[in-house]
Amino acid sequence: MKNYTSLSDIENLQELIAEALALKNENTSASFGKGKTLGMLFFNPSLRTRLSTEKAAKLLGMEVMVMNADKDGWALEFEDGAVMDSNKAEHIREAAAVLSQYCDIIAVRAFPGLIDRNKDEEDTVINSFVKYATVPVVNLESATGHPLQALTDAITVSELKKVNRPKVVLTWAPHPRALPQSVPNSFVEVMQKMDVDLVITNPEGYDLNPKVTKETTILHNQEEALQDADFVYVKNWSSYEDYGKILNEDRNWTFVKKKLEITNDAKVMHCLPVRRNVVIDDAVLDSGNSVVIHQANNRTFAAQVVLRRLLSRD
Amino acid sequence: MKNYTSLSDIENLQELIAEALALKNENTSASFGKGKTLGMLFFNPSLRTRLSTEKAAKLLGMEVMVMNADKDGWALEFEDGAVMDSNKAEHIREAAAVLSQYCDIIAVRAFPGLIDRNKDEEDTVINSFVKYATVPVVNLESATGHPLQALTDAITVSELKKVNRPKVVLTWAPHPRALPQSVPNSFVEVMQKMDVDLVITNPEGYDLNPKVTKETTILHNQEEALQDADFVYVKNWSSYEDYGKILNEDRNWTFVKKKLEITNDAKVMHCLPVRRNVVIDDAVLDSGNSVVIHQANNRTFAAQVVLRRLLSRD
Amino acid sequence: MKNYTSLSDIENLQELIAEALALKNENTSASFGKGKTLGMLFFNPSLRTRLSTEKAAKLLGMEVMVMNADKDGWALEFEDGAVMDSNKAEHIREAAAVLSQYCDIIAVRAFPGLIDRNKDEEDTVINSFVKYATVPVVNLESATGHPLQALTDAITVSELKKVNRPKVVLTWAPHPRALPQSVPNSFVEVMQKMDVDLVITNPEGYDLNPKVTKETTILHNQEEALQDADFVYVKNWSSYEDYGKILNEDRNWTFVKKKLEITNDAKVMHCLPVRRNVVIDDAVLDSGNSVVIHQANNRTFAAQVVLRRLLSRD
Repeated sequence: MKNYTSLSDIENLQELIAEALALKNENTSASFGKGKTLGMLFFNPSLRTRLSTEKAAKLLGMEVMVMNADKDGWALEFEDGAVMDSNKAEHIREAAAVLSQYCDIIAVRAFPGLIDRNKDEEDTVINSFVKYATVPVVNLESATGHPLQALTDAITVSELKKVNRPKVVLTWAPHPRALPQSVPNSFVEVMQKMDVDLVITNPEGYDLNPKVTKETTILHNQEEALQDADFVYVKNWSSYEDYGKILNEDRNWTFVKKKLEITNDAKVMHCLPVRRNVVIDDAVLDSGNSVVIHQANNRTFAAQVVLRRLLSRD
Repeated sequence: MKNYTSLSDIENLQELIAEALALKNENTSASFGKGKTLGMLFFNPSLRTRLSTEKAAKLLGMEVMVMNADKDGWALEFEDGAVMDSNKAEHIREAAAVLSQYCDIIAVRAFPGLIDRNKDEEDTVINSFVKYATVPVVNLESATGHPLQALTDAITVSELKKVNRPKVVLTWAPHPRALPQSVPNSFVEVMQKMDVDLVITNPEGYDLNPKVTKETTILHNQEEALQDADFVYVKNWSSYEDYGKILNEDRNWTFVKKKLEITNDAKVMHCLPVRRNVVIDDAVLDSGNSVVIHQANNRTFAAQVVLRRLLSRD
Repeated sequence: MKNYTSLSDIENLQELIAEALALKNENTSASFGKGKTLGMLFFNPSLRTRLSTEKAAKLLGMEVMVMNADKDGWALEFEDGAVMDSNKAEHIREAAAVLSQYCDIIAVRAFPGLIDRNKDEEDTVINSFVKYATVPVVNLESATGHPLQALTDAITVSELKKVNRPKVVLTWAPHPRALPQSVPNSFVEVMQKMDVDLVITNPEGYDLNPKVTKETTILHNQEEALQDADFVYVKNWSSYEDYGKILNEDRNWTFVKKKLEITNDAKVMHCLPVRRNVVIDDAVLDSGNSVVIHQANNRTFAAQVVLRRLLSRD
């Protein structure tokens, strides 16, 4: 593995999942990453991603250096040829090249602006690091994808499925703020690589990028979609068509307990943080059907397996 | 020890003090905490607590992950059943459960609001972590107590006392800002467990919570209280009766050099940070009577002994 | 070495450079700093300095504790005898003494205000730490100097020079913001200790502190200065004479490609971050003449050699 910035960096998903689940059950040798340094740069807040990736690196024996990019350091310029006479003090070319000398792996979180779709789709921050860094780059959630979360989700579904080919439903839910499509994008992409029956359900106007969803079934009727589901992944996202907008706050889409009855006693997943009683009701989150905490734990093992691959470059 | 959120978590104070003083003089084996992770969450600023606890954990061989809770992560919701449609992105239930998977011990600092006494006395942040975390929780100063500081103070008095039963005076001093009662509360509580003659002195209107002070003598005449003191603990706090208010800024309560003459050549203590020439005069802080730096050093050993107990759960 | 706060702390520069270049090529034993702690305090932003110093310490086996001084901790009072009734919660006397107990080396970054020259020249923050700390203090860039950068620059010139006595030109360049003189000051001072032919060139009104430049040639004609240069160090600084002011934004001083032709195929240096196309043109930075990334890498080895000396106190 050369970088881990999108799911296409994974050659053999099943192998990676198996490796992660093995790691989860073994006492990892701390010698693998000894003398190696992970640099983590945050342009946006993070709890799980920050701590699980740091934990994973340390379990591998790595040193970790964490920076809140704009607050601790300098505002970065990403445009080539820019005459840097405004508020950006450092160009990504220098920042990435220098960090590559201090770190053996660079991990970066940078959310979309949700204003200009074309700009967000260029995923400038993460792609600039890939372009100018000379060490592997890890995506800690970029404008369009969250492949560490998606690998976690694939691990979780593999671990908890009771049938060979489970039905997995990704359902939109309301939320008071406009959120990125990065998590649902990567979830759809990773599920498309798995032996599952994937269905997406969302209100009209909320269809994800068709280049991501491809042939995947999209239903605008949540009840129909949830029929016999083995896994329900609940998640809000803002509109892709009317880019970055909130078109709907209909609480009928909130995942409440009675919706479980339509499913096949489904496991309920969410990447967290979750707005209780807006996205998912307390009664679901506090029931045995919720696996959100179990899922969050798998973040560590997803990160560990990716870091191991990047260190060994195999 | 299961948690360390209040002094009542200590079973045998003398044993703990002896252990801390032994640690201070030995080269701690770094293997005790090897492979274990301390997560530290700060809702408020910290210098000594942050660094001494981090140092203590590392001396034990632990890994440490530090987060400025609201700045680096997500604003937390603590209310059960809340419909999370405002600015709080994550519920304590998820945050505590997830952190419990990444960390072997969680340490939390969360100051009081000093507006609503009942609310502060619920000590919601620390108590919610205890409720929802599945690993031990350490109080790095909560709304009502600072038990790591109090253990430090007990260690310091034990170490420096010259008579079997020293007279220990806690005296209020003026301060330009309204401060919590957490430090004096915990100091009073820990001294009540020690073989000392404890006297509290403060202006009228500044009596601490009677549930804390209990039978301890409270004098409103500082001079009378200081007579023959072996230790003087100087500290400001805002009013408990007229909750969170500054009722008095009388510089006659500042601890100045001539007040030492009334005492039995007392050792002067303070938890730091200290406002020089408002709380305590330069002439006292820079004299041989001041033990505030010595006291701050004991923070490391208090933290170390608590972390050891929590790791071994004995 | 007792502290490293200015270049005068270096006894034998050549020895230090040789040691750094040896470190660069060896696998450092991580045992040298084992059980020792570096505390880093930032009053200003930092990327290279933060990460290279942290990396250096960890390569030596040290633990590192990083604090954004005012944000994570308490605002510090530096004035002796101050009546601390305003917004400063802690005096440097306590802060430095306490940190000396938690850390084996304290490293501090504190920029100048660029308003009051006399005040900046007192370099209060770094000098107060030296005065009140009981452990070695490292300057991570103070109001008047940046000796870790200067040592890096000396290492880089030593490593890359092709003639015994290279011509080294320090040239001013325009910049949209008023910058400190700390980097050029220390660069001039370190080059004065080297066997080089040093020339400074800057517009009128931009002459550096004469106590720093001493007998060094200062030319106000950039073209004349650049003749046959082996190294060109490009850097902006605000006026020393009309203190902290921007007197000139003349882009004729920008270092563009055609200026290289006057030189002896010079290596181009800069401490970074660099404003592209304002300070130095893309065509220079992206050419083989630029050694700015190579130079940044040497930060790690400069820091390592200084930390080693401070730990061994030799």
